[in-house]
Amino acid sequence: MKIITLTTDFGSRDWFVGAMKGVILEIHPGATIVDLTHELEPGDLRGAAFALLASYRFFPKETVHVVVVDPGVGGPRPALAVETSHYLFVAPDNGVLSFALASERIKAVHRLENAKFFRQPVSRTFHGRDVFAPVAAHLAGGVPLRRFGSKQESCIRLDWPSVKVLADRVEGEIVHIDRFGNLITNLDAASLRGFGDRPCEVFRGRNRLCPIAPFYGAVPVGRPLAVMGSTGFLEIAVNGASAARRFGLRVGDRLSVRSWVKSP
Amino acid sequence: MKIITLTTDFGSRDWFVGAMKGVILEIHPGATIVDLTHELEPGDLRGAAFALLASYRFFPKETVHVVVVDPGVGGPRPALAVETSHYLFVAPDNGVLSFALASERIKAVHRLENAKFFRQPVSRTFHGRDVFAPVAAHLAGGVPLRRFGSKQESCIRLDWPSVKVLADRVEGEIVHIDRFGNLITNLDAASLRGFGDRPCEVFRGRNRLCPIAPFYGAVPVGRPLAVMGSTGFLEIAVNGASAARRFGLRVGDRLSVRSWVKSP
Amino acid sequence: MKIITLTTDFGSRDWFVGAMKGVILEIHPGATIVDLTHELEPGDLRGAAFALLASYRFFPKETVHVVVVDPGVGGPRPALAVETSHYLFVAPDNGVLSFALASERIKAVHRLENAKFFRQPVSRTFHGRDVFAPVAAHLAGGVPLRRFGSKQESCIRLDWPSVKVLADRVEGEIVHIDRFGNLITNLDAASLRGFGDRPCEVFRGRNRLCPIAPFYGAVPVGRPLAVMGSTGFLEIAVNGASAARRFGLRVGDRLSVRSWVKSP
Repeated sequence: MKIITLTTDFGSRDWFVGAMKGVILEIHPGATIVDLTHELEPGDLRGAAFALLASYRFFPKETVHVVVVDPGVGGPRPALAVETSHYLFVAPDNGVLSFALASERIKAVHRLENAKFFRQPVSRTFHGRDVFAPVAAHLAGGVPLRRFGSKQESCIRLDWPSVKVLADRVEGEIVHIDRFGNLITNLDAASLRGFGDRPCEVFRGRNRLCPIAPFYGAVPVGRPLAVMGSTGFLEIAVNGASAARRFGLRVGDRLSVRSWVKSP
Repeated sequence: MKIITLTTDFGSRDWFVGAMKGVILEIHPGATIVDLTHELEPGDLRGAAFALLASYRFFPKETVHVVVVDPGVGGPRPALAVETSHYLFVAPDNGVLSFALASERIKAVHRLENAKFFRQPVSRTFHGRDVFAPVAAHLAGGVPLRRFGSKQESCIRLDWPSVKVLADRVEGEIVHIDRFGNLITNLDAASLRGFGDRPCEVFRGRNRLCPIAPFYGAVPVGRPLAVMGSTGFLEIAVNGASAARRFGLRVGDRLSVRSWVKSP
Repeated sequence: MKIITLTTDFGSRDWFVGAMKGVILEIHPGATIVDLTHELEPGDLRGAAFALLASYRFFPKETVHVVVVDPGVGGPRPALAVETSHYLFVAPDNGVLSFALASERIKAVHRLENAKFFRQPVSRTFHGRDVFAPVAAHLAGGVPLRRFGSKQESCIRLDWPSVKVLADRVEGEIVHIDRFGNLITNLDAASLRGFGDRPCEVFRGRNRLCPIAPFYGAVPVGRPLAVMGSTGFLEIAVNGASAARRFGLRVGDRLSVRSWVKSP
């Protein structure tokens, strides 16, 4: 129980992430700290929730996942520690854990109230350093959840965007655009199961964007395709280029999948 | 004595930081290396000095802090190792340690002269890899300061920008703009103590910018405020947006704090 | 045998590198993971090959170097593990190891075929996480090369750009532009040996760009120079500014070195 991951909107230009690591290492010198990303857009709760969903389960059991995208820092929003069957999570109660927790069996949710586990004095602007980092270090060191504060029944959940399975198509939307310009949707294998092995295409309204193909190189360089991505969701890509630039689409844009072969 | 922090202007596009870490780990395999930031503007000595000030004290005692912003690399500028009551510092003698050292009790300053502790051959362009990294590793491994070279009485200091406490106002300036666009000033709690509990506002010349408030969410989203930040300095922010973009201000711009309530 | 370096085009905005680290740490909890760079341009095989060349040898013997710039992911291109006298390398067989391997004595090249060492299910888009990370962790843990798959005689090599030694000049080209805007060429000390100690200048066609000087500060601030860089290659720089911006040159542009002093 000694890996701590960090997911924030703190960027890399400042010392914020470094200061969090200093605080962690002072409390728990043996911690292995891994950065998931610090380049989330400031205040992007959904982006944080998706980045965590996409990566948390690739870590060993008992890893402590810390997420600090925290526009309400210093105000009344609670801060939480959550224990699931496999992991520990530390974050403000603003929805950033939503998508990961939806896949986990929750054992307990506790508020971070016991100032004994905070770095003093606690600033009003940087709980990443003064609250979340020290709590994560103490959790990694084996302090039980109940010692941090009172139990809470639930935590704030962001809605997962809707998938609509219709007679002739399945509709979903873009939930993340990655570094390569791939457009990751909320359509997983289960939501496309109705198509069986029939060839499918992705549409934006009535405009056909691309076929679904097994891997990037299955279409010529410069051509678009959709591929079942590594996160378990269908993504729109262009072989060797950026689908985001090609299609000018954004997070939240709706797409549909259709097949031109009738189901048997 | 095994944490080594790195603060540079080397960026993340190249292999520079990685090469430093390889050199450190070859000499001291047990070192825990923490990046403070590598995204300082090339040659930004004041930015490096401030980043170090803002973060160095959050690390355990005996941490070795390495700062390599070094426009004079390869030339005659000396390189230094500094021991204070709590920490060790390694840097070129160009002022990058100024602000941190002003808060520390200095025990000794030594020049890095003993080539036995350098990586050979020493390049003329990358002392981060060939001088500072190996020296930091040896320091972390317990080699005493005096073995690296001759003692030096002092080191180059950058001026901390002036704070003026006047009859009706306190004047300071912007010393850093962070990732969120917050404008961090050189005004600490002590310099504002004369206002007591009276409500205060921040001005740029005769233009009122914003009130001082306890935390970001104390004003509506989109509204500016000044808040006592996590570094111990007053900073101008906009709740949920960038104060740098809103006000178009830069590092070095002067600001003043006033109160509309007369002192008793 | 426990340091693993990572060189990719995955960027820092997404969770890709974090997920690789999670997979590595699950298999080999004691691994020390070092980022070389993740900011290579998407699909930039030559950039990856040069970054590796520039940094791999600064790591302790038996370090495992992982390079994942992999536009052919999911398709038929083989994946390789390579053992040399000093290091282990893991990468797709697309040339990214070319320049480093040219400096090493190769002991064996094996294909990554044994799915027992992959993370299951293996995605079609992210072998960094599902193939290269787990294989690197197993290699670091001591699994011998032959267990990963069949032996292969050679691997794909990218051409090192040509150096021409002519009667009056030596011609080479720009192979990398670093964060500072320094233009790193393929001209090493050996290729310039014919000039002896004679003063030299760098030309772009018939335009004189700058003299060769021993270090940046040997010319006034704002003036261009060429310097034998830390990677062992001549680089064009501007003291205190960006040579890339000054000269508008790019990777692949040809340059020549001449001396105005006749050889004796």
